[in-house]
Amino acid sequence: MNRILRIDPDNRLAVVEPGVTNEALQQALAPHGFFWAPDPGSAPWCTVGGNLACNASGPHAVKYGSTRDNVLGLRAVAGNGESFRCGTRTTKSAIGYDLTRLLVGSEGTLAVITEATLKLTPKPAAARTLRATYRNTAAAARAVARIMAQAATPCALEFMDALALKLARDHQPGAGVPVAEALLMIELDGAPDALDSAVAAVEAAARVDGLVQLEVARDEAQTRALWAARKALSLAQRSVTQHKINEDVVVPVSRLPELVDGVRQLAERHAVPIVSFGHAGNGNLHVNLLPRDLDEIERAYAALPELFALVIALDGTISGEHGIGVVKREFMPLALPAATLDLMRGIKSAFDPDGILNPGKLLP
Amino acid sequence: MNRILRIDPDNRLAVVEPGVTNEALQQALAPHGFFWAPDPGSAPWCTVGGNLACNASGPHAVKYGSTRDNVLGLRAVAGNGESFRCGTRTTKSAIGYDLTRLLVGSEGTLAVITEATLKLTPKPAAARTLRATYRNTAAAARAVARIMAQAATPCALEFMDALALKLARDHQPGAGVPVAEALLMIELDGAPDALDSAVAAVEAAARVDGLVQLEVARDEAQTRALWAARKALSLAQRSVTQHKINEDVVVPVSRLPELVDGVRQLAERHAVPIVSFGHAGNGNLHVNLLPRDLDEIERAYAALPELFALVIALDGTISGEHGIGVVKREFMPLALPAATLDLMRGIKSAFDPDGILNPGKLLP
Ligand SMILES: Cc1cc2nc3c(=O)[nH]c(=O)nc-3n(C[C@H](O)[C@H](O)[C@H](O)COP(=O)(O)OP(=O)(O)OC[C@H]3O[C@@H](n4cnc5c(N)ncnc54)[C@H](O)[C@@H]3O)c2cc1C
Ligand SMILES: Cc1cc2nc3c(=O)[nH]c(=O)nc-3n(C[C@H](O)[C@H](O)[C@H](O)COP(=O)(O)OP(=O)(O)OC[C@H]3O[C@@H](n4cnc5c(N)ncnc54)[C@H](O)[C@@H]3O)c2cc1C
Repeated sequence: MNRILRIDPDNRLAVVEPGVTNEALQQALAPHGFFWAPDPGSAPWCTVGGNLACNASGPHAVKYGSTRDNVLGLRAVAGNGESFRCGTRTTKSAIGYDLTRLLVGSEGTLAVITEATLKLTPKPAAARTLRATYRNTAAAARAVARIMAQAATPCALEFMDALALKLARDHQPGAGVPVAEALLMIELDGAPDALDSAVAAVEAAARVDGLVQLEVARDEAQTRALWAARKALSLAQRSVTQHKINEDVVVPVSRLPELVDGVRQLAERHAVPIVSFGHAGNGNLHVNLLPRDLDEIERAYAALPELFALVIALDGTISGEHGIGVVKREFMPLALPAATLDLMRGIKSAFDPDGILNPGKLLP
Repeated sequence: MNRILRIDPDNRLAVVEPGVTNEALQQALAPHGFFWAPDPGSAPWCTVGGNLACNASGPHAVKYGSTRDNVLGLRAVAGNGESFRCGTRTTKSAIGYDLTRLLVGSEGTLAVITEATLKLTPKPAAARTLRATYRNTAAAARAVARIMAQAATPCALEFMDALALKLARDHQPGAGVPVAEALLMIELDGAPDALDSAVAAVEAAARVDGLVQLEVARDEAQTRALWAARKALSLAQRSVTQHKINEDVVVPVSRLPELVDGVRQLAERHAVPIVSFGHAGNGNLHVNLLPRDLDEIERAYAALPELFALVIALDGTISGEHGIGVVKREFMPLALPAATLDLMRGIKSAFDPDGILNPGKLLP
């Protein structure tokens, strides 16, 4: 179990069994100067197999891609009982249909992955953190688009809305969490003497009309202080309710203000607290509904279809990294046309003709 | 025809019809400060549709990925006659099977692409070129692995073997093409004041035992001079023969010396000139056979199966960017197990049950 079969620094790859946890893998890679890009919040517990099945990612995807972008090849057993391998040990190939990236994100409905060849990334020597607050989400979104349009792509570009900031502040009053309508956390990594110019470029991009305050951490302690608001948020939400409904929607960056405004209206209309925060550089926000009692729970579930309709209307989609599973399955026809779903069903039949793998998941 | 439907800088995407040429697209993007990463040598003539169908790429793939890594969504008509769309307008999504990346590289055998939403990359402000020569390919390959293991990934990392250098020298005697067993061309891009440290890091990585000479271009003229050898090569090959057989194989970077040595043995055994050069950072070499008469042509075709067997034995594969088409179709069973090919045939049936799209291509 949990075995890392090979770390091959010369070819920037690792071969692992799917049961290894993300964190155990990262720890094994660190002495070689590498990391594997997917960095979900669940890293200590989740497995590489689960990451592959769900196309998981985290804050660093904005620069380093999600799981799908960081896999070279797989071994698997399809639902039809056949063992097969796909992909290559190389970073490029053009030999037929890309079964590797088809399996990533297929949520275990096509094949059981038994071995993975993962693409590694060299660990940058240094990082710098910036924190910016804005008068409104529109200004923050403009800053995100400008930051993403210049060449020094941040390795994290995270957003928090006003309610997320309030929860973090209430939960950890001494942590210096600012009062603002919108906050961006920006992290840049690279060689130490390349970071000054990267920080300058990103700072210039972040200075849009509506900026309230921009801080650049000068040392480790300041970095920790700037991230405190973001880190406090998970526990803060748990202190509000045990019934959090995690959503994970994506819209084009330019539509973020409409999403955040729309979510605020939903929260008012259905009288249930909703926080929005997450991976702004990818337009991927966690919209978390926080119902505190049975009535609010009922109203929260009533708000969900409206949330999904909103993201679709904004040219977005209903999952960025958590996947569909069972609970979002009924919303798939909202996100995808019938012809597309039919082709997915055809692929399912080709791999798993008797429907024995994760029946009832993913496809409506 | 050739229409670019939308350039959307805020969301780093462009929506295009497939008939637009790669070069026309790049020209339209340049004023916005963006480029599309795929940069095949055929850019002035090839279309985005052809790039998508073949998963084309070029030297910049080592940093920016191939076509598959630079597409967000597609509209297409499957072989079953159904129009569908897949993918999203966002850089992240986890909603079902990834039909977008399945279509990329499918060589027109599953669906006809009618519209593509492409992921754009911000154009770096500056670039710097290095050229290194080595006593042997093993030393050059060691340098490639070391360069790829540090965080300043070059935007091009090209290799030329001794015969490629000789051809370039003979063709353009005044161009200062060095005499060497192996040459690396290295290009770095980024912000102007970040490049010094990147060049230093790459220079350190390139200085392995066996290095003969390392030059860093100080200006535009020196950059052009360093690239002269690589640029002269295409015409040089044509001056040798009109019957060039282009191959496009990939091996893990650490196996490049065995590939180049093996190719040299093949050339001797079959008495036909063969040059090796190309995208060393991806382990993707163009192994070009240059038969000059009917006898050599016959011997060249006899050498091909041995070349493919060699790359498979080295954990590599038979195409990095040119694809399979008709001529490499018979070699697919060498590269992929029968179970994998059967799953590909199943996908083909799901999309194109009557086999009307590009019959006889790709799948044996
Ligand atoms: C506290 C917390 C924080 C989280 N943060 C993030 C985050 O930041 N980003 C993110 O993307 N997700 C996040 N998640 C969601 C989840 O942890 C990830 O998606 C993770 O990838 C799931 O891995 P797992 O090992 O837990 O898989 P499981 O939950 O065990 O399985 C998930 C699915 O994968 C399938 N599967 C597992 N192994 C294989 C295999 N070998 N072959 C085929 N199918 C397989 C299972 O059948 C199942 O359908 C979070 C979850 C929690 C609880
Ligand atoms: C001089 C030269 C240099 C080259 N350099 C490179 C290089 O550096 N890197 C590289 O990767 N390749 C290179 N190539 C190969 C080739 O140019 C590319 O692979 C290119 O992507 C093919 O595009 P095209 O428009 O020419 O396609 P075509 O040759 O017209 O078609 C290629 C395939 O794509 C299919 N196709 C075309 N449009 C669609 C569509 N809309 N939907 C579905 N299928 C479609 C066709 O059916 C066909 O099977 C080179 C070729 C030449 C002649």
